[in-house]
Amino acid sequence: MKTKQIVLASRPKGTPTAANFRIETITLSEIKNGEVLLQPNYFSVDPYMRGRMNDTKSYAEPFQIDKPINGGITATVLESKSDNFKSGDIVVGMLPWQEQSVVSEKGLQKIDSKIAPESYYLGILGMTGLTAYFGLMHICKPKKDETVVVSGAAGAVGVVVGQIAKIQGCRVIGIAGSDEKVVLLKNKFGFDEAINYKTTKDLKKDIAKVCPNGVDIYYDNVGGEISDAVIANINFNARIALCGQISLYNSTEIPVGPRIQPMLLTRSVLMQGFIVGNFSAHFPEGMKHLSEWVKDGKLKFTETIGNGFDNLPTALIGLFKGENTGKMIIKA
Amino acid sequence: MKTKQIVLASRPKGTPTAANFRIETITLSEIKNGEVLLQPNYFSVDPYMRGRMNDTKSYAEPFQIDKPINGGITATVLESKSDNFKSGDIVVGMLPWQEQSVVSEKGLQKIDSKIAPESYYLGILGMTGLTAYFGLMHICKPKKDETVVVSGAAGAVGVVVGQIAKIQGCRVIGIAGSDEKVVLLKNKFGFDEAINYKTTKDLKKDIAKVCPNGVDIYYDNVGGEISDAVIANINFNARIALCGQISLYNSTEIPVGPRIQPMLLTRSVLMQGFIVGNFSAHFPEGMKHLSEWVKDGKLKFTETIGNGFDNLPTALIGLFKGENTGKMIIKA
Repeated sequence: MKTKQIVLASRPKGTPTAANFRIETITLSEIKNGEVLLQPNYFSVDPYMRGRMNDTKSYAEPFQIDKPINGGITATVLESKSDNFKSGDIVVGMLPWQEQSVVSEKGLQKIDSKIAPESYYLGILGMTGLTAYFGLMHICKPKKDETVVVSGAAGAVGVVVGQIAKIQGCRVIGIAGSDEKVVLLKNKFGFDEAINYKTTKDLKKDIAKVCPNGVDIYYDNVGGEISDAVIANINFNARIALCGQISLYNSTEIPVGPRIQPMLLTRSVLMQGFIVGNFSAHFPEGMKHLSEWVKDGKLKFTETIGNGFDNLPTALIGLFKGENTGKMIIKA
Repeated sequence: MKTKQIVLASRPKGTPTAANFRIETITLSEIKNGEVLLQPNYFSVDPYMRGRMNDTKSYAEPFQIDKPINGGITATVLESKSDNFKSGDIVVGMLPWQEQSVVSEKGLQKIDSKIAPESYYLGILGMTGLTAYFGLMHICKPKKDETVVVSGAAGAVGVVVGQIAKIQGCRVIGIAGSDEKVVLLKNKFGFDEAINYKTTKDLKKDIAKVCPNGVDIYYDNVGGEISDAVIANINFNARIALCGQISLYNSTEIPVGPRIQPMLLTRSVLMQGFIVGNFSAHFPEGMKHLSEWVKDGKLKFTETIGNGFDNLPTALIGLFKGENTGKMIIKA
């Protein structure tokens, strides 16, 4: 049986282009015991994938040249030689960018699409929500009335971070890249203030203005000059969770900026880089809170859903132009 | 009664000079109830004092123009109107740079100079030892066989950090600024390896060479390019304690360097700025371990002791030229 897959054709220098990907047709292998045949329904498209396009040591394995991209995917089981899954089940897992695939049952999880829309298991009830939850709750440990700044605030993780911080009783400021996103953050997601970093004349001053008591927590998805402006306003005993550095992912040279250690030192600041996998032992706790908040309507979520398997590369490239609001998903 | 004091005459731009200090004669006030007349014996001279010469928000109050410098001092009680101290007692406290002073009993602690030399209470059994202890043990949490790198390793804090790390079963590498210091670190203080950053051609490579398993813990007293070279070798889940940034204290512009957040993010690294005061609730624990290790001969200490009250400014300026090994002390 033939199917299509999307492989990494070459490693990008700077921003990825369509030429870094190739669509090809392959023949699926026979289903062996313990394997299933899957038909993907939703593909998760995430900023961290840019790092995997490089051939450098990082938290996630690099993609291999001429091998399929893989990522979070929900899929329907078409055929099963596994005792754990039957035809018709909906599952989520890290799967190859293929129109169909034969994979081991290991690492697949069944999901109940009656509780929440299927795509939510790639987002708010998946890695995205858990990343927001653990970075904020386990690293930054917000206390009532503290001031929380979120960069990349209108991104998939950012909107969840802001809402959880509000649930904890914090003052929440978002930084985003368009006036539409600013409106959305304040009106839909309940941020106290939001700043469009593309139109501000002095980001450092504008942050100071909306954070009269300084910044206690900085949840950083972006890095670069936006972070410089936030750190210039950081409080004593502040906590900074490093979740992403999307502004730097496409740098071809080592990015340079003001040294931050003197500020972190003199103000006793904590900075912690993390990936969600560091907290896997606590996933049940995170899932419990996230699903309760979603059920109670306290946690809203936004997806940008595109269509068509062939558009996956374009969707990934679009992330770096800030085209999406919230989670970027491609429907097969 | 007249006495001499050393005041801050002006705030330095860049490296402090003698012109930033002034010696003057003042009249001591009468001793009131709850006060004592003190004659200082040993003055602690420390890198953090440079920060206090600036008029900027930091962890320690800035020195005031035309007011005396103050710092850690041991002193003999000459006269007492306090119920807690009697004439002849030896005390330690944060005191003004004066040949004699009348001060409140508050903040003074009696010391027993039979247990350890009096000056040790400014060093290994004082803030220096506690700073080493808490930065390493409470922030970096060393595990047996981990690799620990210490910058400013031959400094007062550095030699203690390295020895405590050895007690914990770690492999310990020191970075220092002369061949004499390198020899001292290896032969006297038991460091496994030491590097002279002033003569190395490629510090990053040289660190990689002596840290074949990467760097799990970095205790940073120095900052700047030395830290860049260490962080380039940092391991997944590493811990960095920011204790000092002496290479940058005299910068007149905001220092610039490679952005470190991408590295901290992709390797799940913790970085924590701190001052010893953050751990005051745990001081008894720290003092207990430090004095046991000193008593058992497991913890050696080095002081550079200069003489003469009038030489205090020169001793402070000398810190930034790397003239001292271990704790810098001036004997009155």
